Amino acid sequence: MALNDTHRVELSSWVESAQTPGSDFPIQNLPFGVFKRTGRIESPRVGAAIGDQIVDVSACLDEGLLAPDAHTAAERCRFSQLNELMALGPEPISALRRALSELLRGDSAAYRRDPGIARRVLVPMYEAELRLPATIGDYTDFYASIDHARNVGSMFRPNDPLLPNYKYVPIGYHGRASSIVLTGTQVRRPAGQIRDDPEQPPAVAPSRRLDYELELGIFVGTPNALGSPVPIIDADRHIFGCCLVNDWSARDIQSWEYQPLGPFLSKSFATTISPWVVTLEALEPFRAPAYVRPDDDPAPLPYLLWDADQRRGGLDIRLEVHLRTATMRQRSQDPVRVSRSRFTSMYWTIAQLLAHHTSNGCNLRSGDLLASGTISGAEPDSRGSLIERTWRGRDPLHLPNGETRTFLVDGDEVIMRAYCERPGFARIGFGDCRGMIVPAL
Amino acid sequence: MALNDTHRVELSSWVESAQTPGSDFPIQNLPFGVFKRTGRIESPRVGAAIGDQIVDVSACLDEGLLAPDAHTAAERCRFSQLNELMALGPEPISALRRALSELLRGDSAAYRRDPGIARRVLVPMYEAELRLPATIGDYTDFYASIDHARNVGSMFRPNDPLLPNYKYVPIGYHGRASSIVLTGTQVRRPAGQIRDDPEQPPAVAPSRRLDYELELGIFVGTPNALGSPVPIIDADRHIFGCCLVNDWSARDIQSWEYQPLGPFLSKSFATTISPWVVTLEALEPFRAPAYVRPDDDPAPLPYLLWDADQRRGGLDIRLEVHLRTATMRQRSQDPVRVSRSRFTSMYWTIAQLLAHHTSNGCNLRSGDLLASGTISGAEPDSRGSLIERTWRGRDPLHLPNGETRTFLVDGDEVIMRAYCERPGFARIGFGDCRGMIVPAL
Repeated sequence: MALNDTHRVELSSWVESAQTPGSDFPIQNLPFGVFKRTGRIESPRVGAAIGDQIVDVSACLDEGLLAPDAHTAAERCRFSQLNELMALGPEPISALRRALSELLRGDSAAYRRDPGIARRVLVPMYEAELRLPATIGDYTDFYASIDHARNVGSMFRPNDPLLPNYKYVPIGYHGRASSIVLTGTQVRRPAGQIRDDPEQPPAVAPSRRLDYELELGIFVGTPNALGSPVPIIDADRHIFGCCLVNDWSARDIQSWEYQPLGPFLSKSFATTISPWVVTLEALEPFRAPAYVRPDDDPAPLPYLLWDADQRRGGLDIRLEVHLRTATMRQRSQDPVRVSRSRFTSMYWTIAQLLAHHTSNGCNLRSGDLLASGTISGAEPDSRGSLIERTWRGRDPLHLPNGETRTFLVDGDEVIMRAYCERPGFARIGFGDCRGMIVPAL
Repeated sequence: MALNDTHRVELSSWVESAQTPGSDFPIQNLPFGVFKRTGRIESPRVGAAIGDQIVDVSACLDEGLLAPDAHTAAERCRFSQLNELMALGPEPISALRRALSELLRGDSAAYRRDPGIARRVLVPMYEAELRLPATIGDYTDFYASIDHARNVGSMFRPNDPLLPNYKYVPIGYHGRASSIVLTGTQVRRPAGQIRDDPEQPPAVAPSRRLDYELELGIFVGTPNALGSPVPIIDADRHIFGCCLVNDWSARDIQSWEYQPLGPFLSKSFATTISPWVVTLEALEPFRAPAYVRPDDDPAPLPYLLWDADQRRGGLDIRLEVHLRTATMRQRSQDPVRVSRSRFTSMYWTIAQLLAHHTSNGCNLRSGDLLASGTISGAEPDSRGSLIERTWRGRDPLHLPNGETRTFLVDGDEVIMRAYCERPGFARIGFGDCRGMIVPAL
């Protein structure tokens, strides 16, 4: 993929809010999502975010505002999920982004001719309900941050923090698709078997070690057939775009259940995703080198190694976790940032994750979600989960209002944010991924 | 659930093949599946198997042959998957089975009036293509055979064969839904990272330890909402029925990748299921006591313990694995039975699996598939996988034609079968679950 006109920093839009400094959705972004207008009887459909507005792609098509080469992709925006659009592959989607960019830029001929189109093709976000962007057939969760693997490994297996396979295998496991929920959905504290005392039998209780995990989600675009691995040189072409993922985790349930087959009920009670899918094309200016392995690390095996991926397979996304407690809400205090990190710290690129996933012939379908695994860096404040941030509860977080946290308390709201910034390019944001904990049943 | 008229052993059908001794599909069974007629342009739809025929439920409805209380369920048979029927719950489905039983029995008034209905509502199986019975949203694989857990555990962890959680937690993990295929689909030998020598780096190669796993599949009927656990006393009401599952496994890939997050690519290349879903109602005469735990085993925790489930939560299903090698096919030799077992040996009941799965609030959707995990008993010939049957390859199987097997060879076909038998009741069969290994790419 290469830079094109949609990336130009000089572009501005006649949608004024797209120019607000710090906006997640300038005209260079145009992430896709699914919306309907609140209170209307109408089908959800695909839109693109710009500023504080949603561009209704179907309305643009009906108004004859899109260039012909964008029609194939625009027609797929009449569905109530992104799967059909995702399946088209990069070129038609790029044509749609280009057409939307032309329509929305300040010097748009269509807008100059008829400024009334604004009313007909834009829906203010505050008048819209968002839906899950895709029907997620399968959800896979990876473990691609070596700092995270080392941190958690040293807690669960002090003698064996990083297992011998880590530097060879992009470790992943199947997650639960049914319980993936959209940002803003309340998350009920799960109950489960917990064994605090290894000399005693387990007891069933609400989790006392409820945690978040900051992850990047990767939506599959073009599918691959069962039995047909995707070579790493083609992997990016099978990726539609990215969102944020909060892989909520009940650590006390996890530590008791996870052997020998991996996490199950400690994760499957809820996974929250952000609503807007930022296309890989919009992220193109923020491509970065893959993780630079120390000299004594093995090189990736040939099926995971491609020179261009090593040079530009990384993504320089900056991520943050914010926390707002019930007390902070009562006092109208802003959320507090509890960590920040960069996706460049990941040991595996997203192309490596996808190539590995299909290397046994496993078929990925459009709309399948791969998550990166918790994103943690080397610094304590870059750790993407509370278990790491508080070192299993040993070092509580001290919040500015005097509260402390080891794990999440009922009423806590976790807000994840991400954005890309680079001189000479517009800031590209992801929109919030939020969830509040409500008490166990 | 109680016994009713559809279970009576005296019932016979005017469909003659339903009376063939050893038939899997007597009138007492009536399992549901999805079919279309070969070579016709028509939508797949739901049918019920009887003898060597398929009853086209939509055609029965159109002909006015079904009692009114069966119409709700029969209308759901117009879909091209069972999900909508499954969602109805036990009573409407029971009404449909009763109506089909009345229509098909020897003394059927409708058939006596007009024997021509046979031609209009039956489709011979040899003229039909079967489809996956349901759109499987999520697939979960359990580990409910204690003999299997002990056998495999002693190979992977000689010092720790049965982990401390086993007798408390119905261990399970999320499987891959996209690669579930129907019986008869060829299975390509997967390639992956294999590390034979712990002193050397892994290499990518076709699996040399390709295995099958004999499992029972459990299809979810009535869904539960996210955040709402299903109590064990209601669990059976959320189960639609059962099929056979072959959880193909690449043992060499598995042993290298599975820590710490569980099996992934070693399983996700293919999972084969049988096409007919035997309803829980048809299995009612074969209910059996739950596993009798030795005195020093802990009792199930309260959320997994219900007196009626302990008394009748088991299922006395007899299962067999047959193998047919390429040589046997060339010589027109019949498949050879390599193991047989009984589902009564399982440590957890299907109600316990479902109650546990939802105990954290995880939502199960209609058509979701839970698999039991490999079904192994205490005897060597009851072990449901080759890794157990040959003790990791140490004790090869000697086939009657002089061939030997440790793991599967290209061209091997694995055929799983299951049936229930009990004096005073008709034999209920599951139909074959078959798959043949084809060479790696």
